[in-house]
Amino acid sequence: MKHIYTGKTKDVYELEGGNYLLQFKDDVTGVDGVFDPGANTVGLSIEGAGRAGLKLTKYFFEVLKEKGIPTHYVDADIEKATMTVKPAEVFGKGLEVICRYRAVGSFLRRYGLYAEEGQALDAFVEVTLKDDEREDPPISEDALDMLGVLTKDEYKVLKELTKQIGNVVKEELAKKDIELYDIKFEFGRTGLDKQIVLIDEISGGNMRAYKDGKYIEPLVLEKLFL
Amino acid sequence: MKHIYTGKTKDVYELEGGNYLLQFKDDVTGVDGVFDPGANTVGLSIEGAGRAGLKLTKYFFEVLKEKGIPTHYVDADIEKATMTVKPAEVFGKGLEVICRYRAVGSFLRRYGLYAEEGQALDAFVEVTLKDDEREDPPISEDALDMLGVLTKDEYKVLKELTKQIGNVVKEELAKKDIELYDIKFEFGRTGLDKQIVLIDEISGGNMRAYKDGKYIEPLVLEKLFL
Repeated sequence: MKHIYTGKTKDVYELEGGNYLLQFKDDVTGVDGVFDPGANTVGLSIEGAGRAGLKLTKYFFEVLKEKGIPTHYVDADIEKATMTVKPAEVFGKGLEVICRYRAVGSFLRRYGLYAEEGQALDAFVEVTLKDDEREDPPISEDALDMLGVLTKDEYKVLKELTKQIGNVVKEELAKKDIELYDIKFEFGRTGLDKQIVLIDEISGGNMRAYKDGKYIEPLVLEKLFL
Repeated sequence: MKHIYTGKTKDVYELEGGNYLLQFKDDVTGVDGVFDPGANTVGLSIEGAGRAGLKLTKYFFEVLKEKGIPTHYVDADIEKATMTVKPAEVFGKGLEVICRYRAVGSFLRRYGLYAEEGQALDAFVEVTLKDDEREDPPISEDALDMLGVLTKDEYKVLKELTKQIGNVVKEELAKKDIELYDIKFEFGRTGLDKQIVLIDEISGGNMRAYKDGKYIEPLVLEKLFL
């Protein structure tokens, strides 16, 4: 097992046979000790955070599998906090794709002239570049195409998958009276036909979820939902 | 003649009969006394700046008229530094539409991970909201549509007009060996059929133009070009 990459919340290893192993860590993104799913720095470390994130990820990736929505997921070992995944290449140096159901966070900071806090949004999709130095700038379909990050056809697939997966997560959470405000995904190309699949994770650290109008912390989400 | 609005670089008056009069001022946008066409504040005042801007605007708007590209332009009085225009409503609270031929300015600040300074761009179009408080955030076609600023059909027209007009300005400048790096436009809806037309101005203050690799100051551009 060969160590490939050390991420903020995961380490990546290459397995015999070509698959990869994601080791979920107890670090979560945030600023000054306060969790923020949109932050680019590790804000704090919480015991059990890795395992909690993996439990949610396993749950959602298996629901997606049942529904025939493609992901890189193979299987997961909760005890070891590891997930086995198929190899996938990211778009350019990595993208985040956000699906929004309510106007909060960076959407509101940018478009507050036209949107009120908490206003309903109809599965609005936007893409940001993973670029810590430039604070993950939003980028348009045209710019992604022009800069060679992804083609217009790939953008269509990405947007459609994002809405589908966002809606699956939203419906799942709604079963426990939890409301999804927004969620971010990562995608990659896999296999010889470069199929676009969901990669990374689906956990409290990737979404804003609310119950009775109150924000649910990522670790609380796992306890409340599973 | 009724005073309607005091802008950063222009005052607006309503004329008898329904047209409007734009009074070009000697104030230009910038920061700390240095001109910057992308800035949101008046940086300095230069004698003759209003008239110079109007001369270029008159020139370009008349070229566009000959080519059948719709604008709000009626006529101009250089001596008085005024321009008569047809009434037009802006999109939402105002948009800026940028056409880029080289990667500089905010494009490079956002997408520097994928673009080199000065790299050629193929008439790349992007839209920003006019919102001083939020530093004119870029906005996607989907967000413009969702927030009710403009429809998808209007976006198509806006993008196509932007490329057409950008290319006209680029070709005009090229006749004097001046290279257009980027230019920003404003558009509005006019008449009962809400036709989309170019409004505001086309002058040194709206573009970055270079000669022999050196940036041309707005007032120098007028002297060099006309």
